[in-house]
Amino acid sequence: MFFHVQKLINQIVPDEPDPEAANALQEGLGGQFGEMRTMMQYLFQSFNFRGDAKPYFDLIQGIGIEEISHVELIATTINRLLDGSPRYQGKNGSVPGEKGATPLNVALTHGNIQHFLVGAQGAMPVDSTGNPWSGSYVYNSGNLVLDLLYNLMLESTGRLQKCRLYEMTKNKTARSTISYLIVRDHAHENAYAKALESLGVNWGKVLPIPKYDAMKLPEVRVLMEKGVHLEQHHWRLDGSEMEKIFRGPSPSGPGELHTTSKPPEGTPVKLGPIRPEEFAPGLPPELLELTQQAALLA
Amino acid sequence: MFFHVQKLINQIVPDEPDPEAANALQEGLGGQFGEMRTMMQYLFQSFNFRGDAKPYFDLIQGIGIEEISHVELIATTINRLLDGSPRYQGKNGSVPGEKGATPLNVALTHGNIQHFLVGAQGAMPVDSTGNPWSGSYVYNSGNLVLDLLYNLMLESTGRLQKCRLYEMTKNKTARSTISYLIVRDHAHENAYAKALESLGVNWGKVLPIPKYDAMKLPEVRVLMEKGVHLEQHHWRLDGSEMEKIFRGPSPSGPGELHTTSKPPEGTPVKLGPIRPEEFAPGLPPELLELTQQAALLA
Amino acid sequence: MFFHVQKLINQIVPDEPDPEAANALQEGLGGQFGEMRTMMQYLFQSFNFRGDAKPYFDLIQGIGIEEISHVELIATTINRLLDGSPRYQGKNGSVPGEKGATPLNVALTHGNIQHFLVGAQGAMPVDSTGNPWSGSYVYNSGNLVLDLLYNLMLESTGRLQKCRLYEMTKNKTARSTISYLIVRDHAHENAYAKALESLGVNWGKVLPIPKYDAMKLPEVRVLMEKGVHLEQHHWRLDGSEMEKIFRGPSPSGPGELHTTSKPPEGTPVKLGPIRPEEFAPGLPPELLELTQQAALLA
Amino acid sequence: MFFHVQKLINQIVPDEPDPEAANALQEGLGGQFGEMRTMMQYLFQSFNFRGDAKPYFDLIQGIGIEEISHVELIATTINRLLDGSPRYQGKNGSVPGEKGATPLNVALTHGNIQHFLVGAQGAMPVDSTGNPWSGSYVYNSGNLVLDLLYNLMLESTGRLQKCRLYEMTKNKTARSTISYLIVRDHAHENAYAKALESLGVNWGKVLPIPKYDAMKLPEVRVLMEKGVHLEQHHWRLDGSEMEKIFRGPSPSGPGELHTTSKPPEGTPVKLGPIRPEEFAPGLPPELLELTQQAALLA
Amino acid sequence: MFFHVQKLINQIVPDEPDPEAANALQEGLGGQFGEMRTMMQYLFQSFNFRGDAKPYFDLIQGIGIEEISHVELIATTINRLLDGSPRYQGKNGSVPGEKGATPLNVALTHGNIQHFLVGAQGAMPVDSTGNPWSGSYVYNSGNLVLDLLYNLMLESTGRLQKCRLYEMTKNKTARSTISYLIVRDHAHENAYAKALESLGVNWGKVLPIPKYDAMKLPEVRVLMEKGVHLEQHHWRLDGSEMEKIFRGPSPSGPGELHTTSKPPEGTPVKLGPIRPEEFAPGLPPELLELTQQAALLA
Amino acid sequence: MFFHVQKLINQIVPDEPDPEAANALQEGLGGQFGEMRTMMQYLFQSFNFRGDAKPYFDLIQGIGIEEISHVELIATTINRLLDGSPRYQGKNGSVPGEKGATPLNVALTHGNIQHFLVGAQGAMPVDSTGNPWSGSYVYNSGNLVLDLLYNLMLESTGRLQKCRLYEMTKNKTARSTISYLIVRDHAHENAYAKALESLGVNWGKVLPIPKYDAMKLPEVRVLMEKGVHLEQHHWRLDGSEMEKIFRGPSPSGPGELHTTSKPPEGTPVKLGPIRPEEFAPGLPPELLELTQQAALLA
Repeated sequence: MFFHVQKLINQIVPDEPDPEAANALQEGLGGQFGEMRTMMQYLFQSFNFRGDAKPYFDLIQGIGIEEISHVELIATTINRLLDGSPRYQGKNGSVPGEKGATPLNVALTHGNIQHFLVGAQGAMPVDSTGNPWSGSYVYNSGNLVLDLLYNLMLESTGRLQKCRLYEMTKNKTARSTISYLIVRDHAHENAYAKALESLGVNWGKVLPIPKYDAMKLPEVRVLMEKGVHLEQHHWRLDGSEMEKIFRGPSPSGPGELHTTSKPPEGTPVKLGPIRPEEFAPGLPPELLELTQQAALLA
Repeated sequence: MFFHVQKLINQIVPDEPDPEAANALQEGLGGQFGEMRTMMQYLFQSFNFRGDAKPYFDLIQGIGIEEISHVELIATTINRLLDGSPRYQGKNGSVPGEKGATPLNVALTHGNIQHFLVGAQGAMPVDSTGNPWSGSYVYNSGNLVLDLLYNLMLESTGRLQKCRLYEMTKNKTARSTISYLIVRDHAHENAYAKALESLGVNWGKVLPIPKYDAMKLPEVRVLMEKGVHLEQHHWRLDGSEMEKIFRGPSPSGPGELHTTSKPPEGTPVKLGPIRPEEFAPGLPPELLELTQQAALLA
Repeated sequence: MFFHVQKLINQIVPDEPDPEAANALQEGLGGQFGEMRTMMQYLFQSFNFRGDAKPYFDLIQGIGIEEISHVELIATTINRLLDGSPRYQGKNGSVPGEKGATPLNVALTHGNIQHFLVGAQGAMPVDSTGNPWSGSYVYNSGNLVLDLLYNLMLESTGRLQKCRLYEMTKNKTARSTISYLIVRDHAHENAYAKALESLGVNWGKVLPIPKYDAMKLPEVRVLMEKGVHLEQHHWRLDGSEMEKIFRGPSPSGPGELHTTSKPPEGTPVKLGPIRPEEFAPGLPPELLELTQQAALLA
Repeated sequence: MFFHVQKLINQIVPDEPDPEAANALQEGLGGQFGEMRTMMQYLFQSFNFRGDAKPYFDLIQGIGIEEISHVELIATTINRLLDGSPRYQGKNGSVPGEKGATPLNVALTHGNIQHFLVGAQGAMPVDSTGNPWSGSYVYNSGNLVLDLLYNLMLESTGRLQKCRLYEMTKNKTARSTISYLIVRDHAHENAYAKALESLGVNWGKVLPIPKYDAMKLPEVRVLMEKGVHLEQHHWRLDGSEMEKIFRGPSPSGPGELHTTSKPPEGTPVKLGPIRPEEFAPGLPPELLELTQQAALLA
Repeated sequence: MFFHVQKLINQIVPDEPDPEAANALQEGLGGQFGEMRTMMQYLFQSFNFRGDAKPYFDLIQGIGIEEISHVELIATTINRLLDGSPRYQGKNGSVPGEKGATPLNVALTHGNIQHFLVGAQGAMPVDSTGNPWSGSYVYNSGNLVLDLLYNLMLESTGRLQKCRLYEMTKNKTARSTISYLIVRDHAHENAYAKALESLGVNWGKVLPIPKYDAMKLPEVRVLMEKGVHLEQHHWRLDGSEMEKIFRGPSPSGPGELHTTSKPPEGTPVKLGPIRPEEFAPGLPPELLELTQQAALLA
Repeated sequence: MFFHVQKLINQIVPDEPDPEAANALQEGLGGQFGEMRTMMQYLFQSFNFRGDAKPYFDLIQGIGIEEISHVELIATTINRLLDGSPRYQGKNGSVPGEKGATPLNVALTHGNIQHFLVGAQGAMPVDSTGNPWSGSYVYNSGNLVLDLLYNLMLESTGRLQKCRLYEMTKNKTARSTISYLIVRDHAHENAYAKALESLGVNWGKVLPIPKYDAMKLPEVRVLMEKGVHLEQHHWRLDGSEMEKIFRGPSPSGPGELHTTSKPPEGTPVKLGPIRPEEFAPGLPPELLELTQQAALLA
């Protein structure tokens, strides 16, 4: 059973809207190596887990639960990048399309047009070229060594793509989430590498992948100095044995891994503003009043 | 942020394995109107929600969180139906393929062959004809009335398909989960119908859809007599305003809706047994020993 | 602008329901070389036609219009093959699922389960392995010779697949439509071959494809003896110049082509019966009464 | 059986070519909520209709037939927007590619490159991000209430997306068709809402969706003042009982619905000009002469 | 540049036709972890290779070239399993469909119907549930360590699936190819594991995956006793530096790796017989004669 | 069995990088009518060939083998067009992302973003709108006349699309490969047209398609003057009977076809340079040293 707290796992830094950065980030949400995929892959691996190696089960499932919060974080980041990007503020009592206005004109030439046409300046379960997320992405062979190996490769690919995303945009909203995910993918690389280490593999010097000192990126440095790449929470209200694996020397460089007993503090999320040019939520005054009556009920 | 308790939202009744029933249930997991879709649709609708109609937001998100637990429940049910279906018990020191044995022969003619060939007798994110789940299923227009209307139609289709599934198999494992989902889809129909009612729609006598008194199905009757179709938990550790909508007379027949302050009790989940014919988890004695050493660590 | 008469372009012979034959026929409806594809391909070619070679335009469009009626015919044939195939007649006041009944049990092991689970014993826009029809099938290069050449190949492939379908089942319902389509695909082969002939190609003895004397199939013989493979209507209420191409000696054997000034007579279609085990249409007595009130209005 | 008249259901206003607007309009043609989908959905619902509620059948089928003409209209509009957009006129005996010319250079950076590379400046069965239309879009549960509810939601989504399209471009060619479809989707919303009303639903004030007074858009106002959103033809040469539902007060605002006994007058369509840079139709003088000989035959 | 010799890389043992085994083998041909994917993945990795680590390039490319021959082998094996499976021999001058015969009736209930309906008892680029092969399977990150890690996982998954296939069927035709591929996937596991070993990874005892002594399978034992899992040819007519990596102790158990200077001897392939019930090749006597005239030309 | 020589089948002319031209060329690589498709289609047709018309078999297979080299050529051309297109040279010890740099910024607005984000400035198996290559493209009916007819249409479409590509870009790298493929597609048109000619078809004046004198394109003229459109190698190390068909007068204009006994000379290929902004190959100094040690081994 799953529960929720209305907080984001990491803070999003405000900046200008940027629909092209939003589109790039879709790869990290709905792409083949994005957060929807890690989430679904680890959840299916935990549903189908065989044998009594419970700490391994708890490790995979724990990361899977965290990934749902990553989906929430990156989807919200994409929203922030899209929201207001048409620069139409509905001021002065103006009305969509009135007097030949084209408040959504930006959609024709920037980013993914469906962000404005199918959605209402919001995230979608697609990749950066608009291909929808596919269940065929989920890998779950049932063989523990193989699943761990795939997961290590998957997290490394995630870190690789996010490092590339960092190099594509200076937008602070985008970079704050990209940087956080670079560091968390690093932590997950550590987790799967450590699990394989416990089965006898010695990784030598090949980790992390990419073999790049992300401390050179200022936002990443702040997080790594706090050790965010070395820690992992289990996200289980009823406890977990993840800690039996996620501890000891990091397989990817200096530092000690440790499983935290408390989740990150998180930051509150605000609901997005109404966008009349998108007819979202599209309630006229009389219906808005009805929703307010509902909200006022004890 | 999301959390988890290692319990199922409803109990699964034991019965014989049945790979064809397992395959049928895949429609309810990875089909266009299955639980992965409701889960993703409501989560995206909550990520992208606009306006300050918070009780509506809480309603959609709350159901979305519950759907993750439905995905867990139906995936586990499929596992139970698949597990052991090849009737190969690996007894007497026998070895996969030894002496010309074909322990997985059942896969060629029963259900979805990939349940045995790609997965290890476990659930997959596909529908009942093997088509992978697609992100294109997710509907999120951003217009509140439209999203509520679609959600009502979606839950009704879910209930319709599950009533048909009930008529396809007598297997008790399958029917216990199918029946639970018939009743919960009914509750969700009530939720979205009620939300639209609060905006002025009067449903007359068309609900629930299908217009069928499911009390005639014994397993469903037990649950409806407990009022499971009239109640809804919010799944939020930090509270919710869902209750401002989900209360008052049911729009689909007799009874009063009420939002529960506590989640269902749930039932513990056990990990699946080792299946050597699937090489799952595929650890030989020396590696198994290493996992046990890890498990024994303080 | 398109119009309709509620008649089928050819009569369907009654026989026993047969869900496996129904599934096979799906290839002819929603498969890559089925009727939905020919219909869409020729309509797009006519929408996008360039130049003033009007008889060629009228030929392509005319066949495209006929293909909509083929989609109607084959979909209805699939319905007839599915309808009642679960052998549940809802007699004696029995109720779906009551007393552990499994009226849809056949769905687990015969044909496409989605015919019973997603649809209600009705045709779907998918092929014989359940893959949905795709817009990527439509070929429209804009180059007239190429489009004609592709269309010739497409009709020949259609005829080939229908000849194979004939060999798969003895069901008279299935065979009556298969045979009709074998003959009409032959007529369309003639049409595209003749159009290329008018541009200077001489086909020698390679047509029709497959190079098989379908007169050996009794149902086909009846139609060919009437010359159904040699005639073509234009389906245009405002006239057509198709006749300038579709006339003269057949490029695929003996006989003269001729464009008919009247459409085939057609046969009336009946609406399918209610199927309570499918909740289709799923109206309880009080709602049925409302629909009857509507029907009775002057 | 289907018939055709070589006229468009509404007039297209001439304006400059605009490949980006053309690409946006593809969502309305081949997108998940576009005209190909409504057409196919309603046709399949009519092929598979169960029960004797004939006016409901006639309503669904009648709208389905109209949608084929909408597919024709929007495809032709896309053609007009694409045609000539490379601004290469083939004047002065110039030859494609000659002297290093790049007459199709625009394709690399404007709209969908496949409009120029795979097609010949013509419409394609894809959405605005290039994803091909899929048969999985078609919804047909067989349950009448559900199918009507889905259709209502579908038309509302169509109207929503077309309102957004209006805000994206000022091109008159695009806007003339967008406006017409806004009004016709409104009429179809009315039709399905009315059908549900006849079964006892009272919509209050939620319709139309989006809840937006489209009279503010000049092209739409002209049509609404003529009552185009309140009328519906049945498109059946042999009569229809649609009128038993489509009449009486509009469920979405002031006005009375009425079923027309005659179709709209329509406007003639011209074939597109030759585009040598696309090799369309690509006939050299000697073959062109042959087509003209064919055309001149009595 | 690529060249070919008309030989199979390994001999196929004759046995009865078996369309269900044929369908299972499709996973190994066109499945997500089948030979088409390994072939395309390694070829793309070699086309896009960066840096001057030539032995690594030669290793990846060399295995890629071998995989084309694996595609040829498994496709031919599927052909053998399908060919004649309808048990229609076209004897005695009998004619397809004549006298109501249904020579392809087996297609309705055994294996993949498209093997008989779309193809002519031949292999297709699809997986074991009929999903077409997709370019999205190809992984090529450009990061050498990641690509090697993925390739190791891919070969291990291939070996896992082929071990499961072995347990599904006793058919000797199927098992001869399955066994060969188990051993060659083992060799490729060795290759990628060795390449990572050269970069400092120590695999301990986790290899091969699955951790299963395939010597227990008689056909596999014969090959392993010849050391087929320890050797690798480079398939380059102009030499290769693969040997600088593929040598030394096997990372997956006893034995020394060695790169062979000569390819395997191979076995000749025969063309399949005519199948009149499939209209393949479908040449009537007069056209057959023309092909023989062509064949007799000096 | 397949072999390889590390040479390209034609020389690529150097020019500036151009990611938009690279994206356009993807249609020729991974598009529905691109080289991956011709390669796979002809290979499957040869695997599944029936009957003893060996020269026809050798013709189809021989062209199929050549197409693998075309895949190699066009993939390498795309690499050249992408490589360095971000204009980041990693000079002066600079580091990706350092000091807020965005070395991959070009990816957001030019060509296909996945060329930079998923791949490392390298070719992908997708078309020009990012849709992955699909196995459903492969046509193989088993009927020889149909397969030849389809192949003729396929090559003609390839030639058509490449002529359009020529008109889209002046980039010399792109045009050198486009021109070569225009001429080779012409040769393949000749091959399939000739094979059908041998079965009695007379093509008159419709070939080549498009009916365009490509001698007007300077790069094409050079190749046609050498007769590259009239010759064909068989690519078989063990000989071929292709020559029995591919000889005699060209069916598409002046000239004699001839089968060459030797392959084209080819040009050497160089491996791409390291791109640190892509982390490709991403080896730090200590790992690079290990690869060099491997390379230096005798």
